[in-house]
Amino acid sequence: MEKRILLTECTDDVGLIAKITNVCSLFHFNVIRQDQFASSEDNKFFMRTVIEGEFSDEKSNETFVNTVTGVLPQGAHVRLVGTGRKKLCVLVTKESHCLGELLMKAYSGAMNADIVLVAGNYPDLGPLAEKFDVPFKLVSTDGITKEEQEKRMMEVIDGCNPDYVILAKYMRILSPEFVGHYPLGKIINIHHSFLPAFIGAKPYLQAYNRGVKLIGATAHFVTNNLDEGPIIAQDVIKVNHRYDPETLAKAGHDVEQMVLMRAVNKVLDDKVFIHGNKTVVF
Amino acid sequence: MEKRILLTECTDDVGLIAKITNVCSLFHFNVIRQDQFASSEDNKFFMRTVIEGEFSDEKSNETFVNTVTGVLPQGAHVRLVGTGRKKLCVLVTKESHCLGELLMKAYSGAMNADIVLVAGNYPDLGPLAEKFDVPFKLVSTDGITKEEQEKRMMEVIDGCNPDYVILAKYMRILSPEFVGHYPLGKIINIHHSFLPAFIGAKPYLQAYNRGVKLIGATAHFVTNNLDEGPIIAQDVIKVNHRYDPETLAKAGHDVEQMVLMRAVNKVLDDKVFIHGNKTVVF
Amino acid sequence: MEKRILLTECTDDVGLIAKITNVCSLFHFNVIRQDQFASSEDNKFFMRTVIEGEFSDEKSNETFVNTVTGVLPQGAHVRLVGTGRKKLCVLVTKESHCLGELLMKAYSGAMNADIVLVAGNYPDLGPLAEKFDVPFKLVSTDGITKEEQEKRMMEVIDGCNPDYVILAKYMRILSPEFVGHYPLGKIINIHHSFLPAFIGAKPYLQAYNRGVKLIGATAHFVTNNLDEGPIIAQDVIKVNHRYDPETLAKAGHDVEQMVLMRAVNKVLDDKVFIHGNKTVVF
Amino acid sequence: MEKRILLTECTDDVGLIAKITNVCSLFHFNVIRQDQFASSEDNKFFMRTVIEGEFSDEKSNETFVNTVTGVLPQGAHVRLVGTGRKKLCVLVTKESHCLGELLMKAYSGAMNADIVLVAGNYPDLGPLAEKFDVPFKLVSTDGITKEEQEKRMMEVIDGCNPDYVILAKYMRILSPEFVGHYPLGKIINIHHSFLPAFIGAKPYLQAYNRGVKLIGATAHFVTNNLDEGPIIAQDVIKVNHRYDPETLAKAGHDVEQMVLMRAVNKVLDDKVFIHGNKTVVF
Repeated sequence: MEKRILLTECTDDVGLIAKITNVCSLFHFNVIRQDQFASSEDNKFFMRTVIEGEFSDEKSNETFVNTVTGVLPQGAHVRLVGTGRKKLCVLVTKESHCLGELLMKAYSGAMNADIVLVAGNYPDLGPLAEKFDVPFKLVSTDGITKEEQEKRMMEVIDGCNPDYVILAKYMRILSPEFVGHYPLGKIINIHHSFLPAFIGAKPYLQAYNRGVKLIGATAHFVTNNLDEGPIIAQDVIKVNHRYDPETLAKAGHDVEQMVLMRAVNKVLDDKVFIHGNKTVVF
Repeated sequence: MEKRILLTECTDDVGLIAKITNVCSLFHFNVIRQDQFASSEDNKFFMRTVIEGEFSDEKSNETFVNTVTGVLPQGAHVRLVGTGRKKLCVLVTKESHCLGELLMKAYSGAMNADIVLVAGNYPDLGPLAEKFDVPFKLVSTDGITKEEQEKRMMEVIDGCNPDYVILAKYMRILSPEFVGHYPLGKIINIHHSFLPAFIGAKPYLQAYNRGVKLIGATAHFVTNNLDEGPIIAQDVIKVNHRYDPETLAKAGHDVEQMVLMRAVNKVLDDKVFIHGNKTVVF
Repeated sequence: MEKRILLTECTDDVGLIAKITNVCSLFHFNVIRQDQFASSEDNKFFMRTVIEGEFSDEKSNETFVNTVTGVLPQGAHVRLVGTGRKKLCVLVTKESHCLGELLMKAYSGAMNADIVLVAGNYPDLGPLAEKFDVPFKLVSTDGITKEEQEKRMMEVIDGCNPDYVILAKYMRILSPEFVGHYPLGKIINIHHSFLPAFIGAKPYLQAYNRGVKLIGATAHFVTNNLDEGPIIAQDVIKVNHRYDPETLAKAGHDVEQMVLMRAVNKVLDDKVFIHGNKTVVF
Repeated sequence: MEKRILLTECTDDVGLIAKITNVCSLFHFNVIRQDQFASSEDNKFFMRTVIEGEFSDEKSNETFVNTVTGVLPQGAHVRLVGTGRKKLCVLVTKESHCLGELLMKAYSGAMNADIVLVAGNYPDLGPLAEKFDVPFKLVSTDGITKEEQEKRMMEVIDGCNPDYVILAKYMRILSPEFVGHYPLGKIINIHHSFLPAFIGAKPYLQAYNRGVKLIGATAHFVTNNLDEGPIIAQDVIKVNHRYDPETLAKAGHDVEQMVLMRAVNKVLDDKVFIHGNKTVVF
């Protein structure tokens, strides 16, 4: 008996849960867990169903997905995904904490993914990646245009065919061309503030200047609008007047790595749907 | 169109979600939200289904419940409950913060219940209840046995026929007779510690003596075992070496009232199932 | 033996702590607790010293303050304050939760202040104030200019001579004239967002539209810049995709009342210094 | 100009802060930050003073410490410590998350210490330590008595002369002989529960069986009483009915590594005093 996850997105309607679970029964799949959400704002329906059964016949799986699609309103998007280890490509600059956490969780088995490549615009984190036998590619910006650097980076990423690209403190603003090269939902960024507060550069300096009593971090899918993509996870920690921009940044590292890890794990579990500029996270 | 909630508990089996949602479809009830949990420990299944439709015919509602029960494994427990305001009886001693929070939330409409009676073993909180036009009954322990006092308290409670009895810092240990007089799940207590730490009397003094860096509160259903009933909600706040037992208690009041309120709201929304000595909280 | 608090602000210099504590010794005051902060940004020094001794001779107290001032760099600001109950004037509109919490904490003795007046631009919360025997003044905006309404409100406030004015969800933007009528540090506002996110109107709608996973509240001193005064306290709670603007607001009420209460208590304990557009909170 | 930290413990008395800061002035040390606590329970006084000045003459430093001691009540314990990197010896068994966090923080410079040795009773974490060029010593229990294994472990530890010994999920109960071999305050343990709840073995199983809604971790100094030493730091995370003992443990790893790291950093900053069976943490 194997487990798979059925992911359904469609226009909301009466009886959807019954229809979908009936098809599951028909194909002798047992429903282990089901979460659903219907947005009253735009009448969209999202459902994640963990099912158990016999999935060895891929043709039969395809028929199952088609049958589910057939009972749903037109335009439904239905996927059947496995629960195996995914492949991550991690982009970095110089700060090691987020990459370190990802490497450690992959190493200990606490993250259901392998890091197949680390790529950086600086060489600083190469030795860290290599400690964990993960290849590192330097894609420097030196002496070339932003366009050319991004082109090379895309080649490097595409060369390892990852399921997700994780921006683990990759301190470069991505061009629309780069972002548009990947489907929405494939690139995950960690931003070092509680968005939408302190969009853009130097959020810890902004936080210091404003005198906030909490600092935060936000993991989100990347879109063309800087720091404005759908938010997956956020958290904060308390700070006080004794913190300066440097100690704020140091304290913030802990919440950054924790929030990124939480978001990555939710995505790896296929618990995150994109809903316009928001997310549904089961 | 009215909303009701279908609550199902039974032995786990293949296809339960499909069976239940099919019956909903058959009776033309639309499923708004569904949460379910199957315990691998003892093979029990719990489901809460918010449905929308026409419920004016009580006989038809009964048929609906019976039909649901009929498709489930033997021994299933099925209820169809409304979403109207419930009635609370609140028991108190001298501390006002939990009662105050309940009164304020009922007053502002933020709690889906009316407080129909406040009863205390001391007269101190009578004036507070009466400010909000809630009757107060003093059931003193003076000059009578514990047994007699409890008997009078039960009469007072039963006289107002509440849906739930809230022990809002009622500082009396209840006898098995008192507890057994009410069905499990009817009496909710707030204990001023992070259970199971600091069971029993003077938890803040115990916390002080142990030098903990967090103090907490626990809302739970009352059983015969002191402070050992199924936990509904818990939370903590940070403390440090500067707190003494008195300031710990003062700081703890905030987390007590918040945790009690959260638990009461979950229970009023019929989101809490009792599962052995634990709870399932949707 | 009485306790008082010595509050010192001045340019930072070598030996300030020694100088101040020496003067305390000279006047036979025992230092119970001392907190200090020197800002490296602008070289300002802040100290709060709880001292114990004999304060019955006001002339001697004045000499003490002058002696402390004398040993400090020019421009030092030194105050000796008592620890008695303060007087609050609370401004409200229609939402009851913050006012309710303030009234309850004053009632139970958990707040070291008396609410001497509640004033509202709508009559809705009059009955609540009066339950607690606190006078309520309606200062309606009906049929008069904003200028005139503010003038009347200032008369009402000044008539009760409060130590602090608490804006407990007073949903009016204050004019520079109103703000300038009071010293900085006298008016405390609770804003229903995690500032600087969602400045201005309808923060819960803004939060909903952005799809954040946390919502917050911010208590701050009021200045002429809307929602930009020095922050005293902030906190957040977790939310998810199931919340709409209305349920976000309802959930936010808990964190609003908690954050306002925490800020008010810090201010009442004279633990808050204003430092430019920030605060030092001991 | 160098920074050092003056740590003072003595019986409380009138004028201690003045006396100590006066000696600092006398020796031309500028006080950067000062935190103090006087326990009303047992009349003990603790002070941590960060001072800046010229410390190159060790004889003069000794005179300074003696002068401070001389102005304090008899039995005072005064230390002047530097702010340089400390040396840690980390003991482990099989779980990698706490060791991984310590290695990463040492690697990134976010922890003011070097890990000079990792020692384990199983070989599992040798490769991880060696990735970071930290020597690993296996001190197996195989075929030898507990007494003999502890003797070897003490030799290994003493051989690297660490400032602190960190039990990073070292799953062995230490004998009184082992504990007594080191001064109190030298060995720090992370326990995987919110102590005093769930003392002893299998806290996550205990937490599961009790149905708690929060799980926690506790970092404490090690004494002869299992899990009862002075607590340095604690924190919790929310869980629910969906967690089983295994997923509770996995979720708990995050809070364990965070709490251990926080405690270690506080100790490395000399911000922790031992006060009977409690701590004072500035």
